[in-house]
Amino acid sequence: MQIITSPSNEKIKQVALYSKKASSRKDDGVFLAEGVKLVREIPFGLIREIYISESCLEKEKNSLPKGFDDKMAVLPDHVFEKISTMKSPQGMLAVVKNLSYGIKDITGKDPLILVLEDIQDPGNVGTIFRSAEAAGVTGIVLSENSADPLSPKVVRSTMGAIFRMPFVVSSDIPALVRNFEKEGIVCYAARLENGKPYYECDMTSKCAIIIGNEGNGLSPEVNKAASCGIYIPMNGKTESLNAAVSASILSYEAGRQRRII
Amino acid sequence: MQIITSPSNEKIKQVALYSKKASSRKDDGVFLAEGVKLVREIPFGLIREIYISESCLEKEKNSLPKGFDDKMAVLPDHVFEKISTMKSPQGMLAVVKNLSYGIKDITGKDPLILVLEDIQDPGNVGTIFRSAEAAGVTGIVLSENSADPLSPKVVRSTMGAIFRMPFVVSSDIPALVRNFEKEGIVCYAARLENGKPYYECDMTSKCAIIIGNEGNGLSPEVNKAASCGIYIPMNGKTESLNAAVSASILSYEAGRQRRII
Repeated sequence: MQIITSPSNEKIKQVALYSKKASSRKDDGVFLAEGVKLVREIPFGLIREIYISESCLEKEKNSLPKGFDDKMAVLPDHVFEKISTMKSPQGMLAVVKNLSYGIKDITGKDPLILVLEDIQDPGNVGTIFRSAEAAGVTGIVLSENSADPLSPKVVRSTMGAIFRMPFVVSSDIPALVRNFEKEGIVCYAARLENGKPYYECDMTSKCAIIIGNEGNGLSPEVNKAASCGIYIPMNGKTESLNAAVSASILSYEAGRQRRII
Repeated sequence: MQIITSPSNEKIKQVALYSKKASSRKDDGVFLAEGVKLVREIPFGLIREIYISESCLEKEKNSLPKGFDDKMAVLPDHVFEKISTMKSPQGMLAVVKNLSYGIKDITGKDPLILVLEDIQDPGNVGTIFRSAEAAGVTGIVLSENSADPLSPKVVRSTMGAIFRMPFVVSSDIPALVRNFEKEGIVCYAARLENGKPYYECDMTSKCAIIIGNEGNGLSPEVNKAASCGIYIPMNGKTESLNAAVSASILSYEAGRQRRII
C-alpha cells in the first residue's frame, strides 16, 4: 500500500487526466471504474491501480478483498476529488486495462445479440448492458456514434456488467447486419412500421435485435439490411419508449422464449 | 404576445424562483414544463403562461399552436436562460397549473396501478410514467420519499405522459396497500424472495404492482401488506435491474396478459 499526499504527484496528475480526457485513456489502453461496489466487481487481473480516499479506507478497511493492498494508493479526500469522475465521490476508483473482444466472441453458440445504433445517452447504454446480462444476451455491438462503453458514466451504469458482457464497437453497422444475416443470424430491427409485435417474433434461434436512437430511430441502411421488423405496441399518446426500456423488454422476451429466465 | 427585455421584470423574477425552488411552485399551485415538444403536449386549459426565447420563436413561429399567442411572452435568449431548468435550454417553457387527482381516479374500472416506494431518481420516475402510459397502466401512486412527480426533471422525462396519467402521492404506502387488498385489488410486491416469476403471475384482474428503491428494495411493512410477490428472473451476476426497467417489464407483462398491447 502506497500513500500519496500531494495533488502534484505524477500518478495523480496522470489519473486526473484519465478522468477528464477519453483520448488519454485510449492512448494508454485503460479505462476508469469508480465506486465502492463497482471496483469489487473488476476481475482482479484487469486492475492496474486502485485509489482510495482516507475516509473510504477507514470505512472499508475490514472488508477489502485480498490482493487490493499491492495495487492500492491511499489519498487524502481532497486529493481523491482531483481524480474522481463523480459529483459525490465515494472514495474508490480503479484504473483498469482495456477490455477487447472480436466479433467471434459474440457470435458463438446460440447468439442473442443486441446492436445499438447511435444510442448516445451514457446512462441508457449502461442500463442496457445491465439488463442484457440479466436477460441472457450473449454480446453487444455499438455503432461508433453511440456512447463510449468504456467511459466512466457508462461503466458505472452497467453496475459491473461491463466486465462480463462481450462487446464490439463497429464503424459499419449495415455491413455487420448483412454479415449476420448471411451467417443465419436473424436481425430484428426495432421500428414502428413493417414489423410484428415483439411477442409474435421468434427469437429462439440465433438472432440480433437492433435498437436505434430515440429521436431518429434506425437509419434507412440498417432498416434495409435487417430481414425483420419488431415493435413494442403502445397505448395512449406515447410516441416512443426510452431506449434502455425498449432494449430490456425485447431482451427479456428473447430470454423468456429461450427459457433461460 | 408580450415582449419582456429586462431580467429584473417581476414575472421573470417569479419564474426564475419557480425554476429554483419547489416550495415556491407549491405555494402558487404550479409546476414547470420545459422543452419545445413538451410544451405542445400540455392540455391548453392548464397553461398559465408560456415563455419563449427570441431564437426559439424565430425557428418555431410558423408552427405554434393557435392560442399560444395570448399566453406567450418573448424574451431575449440571455433572459430566457435565467428561468430555464435545463443545461442546454431549447427556449420554450410553460408555467402549468397543478394536476390534482384523488385515489378514486386511479382505482376505477379494471385498475392496473403502479406503486413506487422511494424511487428517488427523477429520470427513473419520469421514464416509469412514460412506459406506464404505453403499457396501459391506469394510475401511479408515489411514496412521499419518491422524486416529486411535478419537478422539472421528472416532468421532462415523462415526455408528456405526466399530463395524461393520473397519480397520487401517499404518505402511508402500507395502509394504501392494505386498503387496495380489501377492495380486491391484488398487490404484487416486486422482490427477489417469496414470489413467482412475473410471467406466472395473473395480472388480468384488478391489481397493483409495487416497485421499491434499487438499493434497499421494498420496506418490510409494504412487503407484509402485499398478498403476492413477483420477480424478474436474472442471469449472470446481476443483482438487480434499474427501477424504470423493472417497472416497464412488469407493466408490459400486465398489458400483454390483458391484451391491451
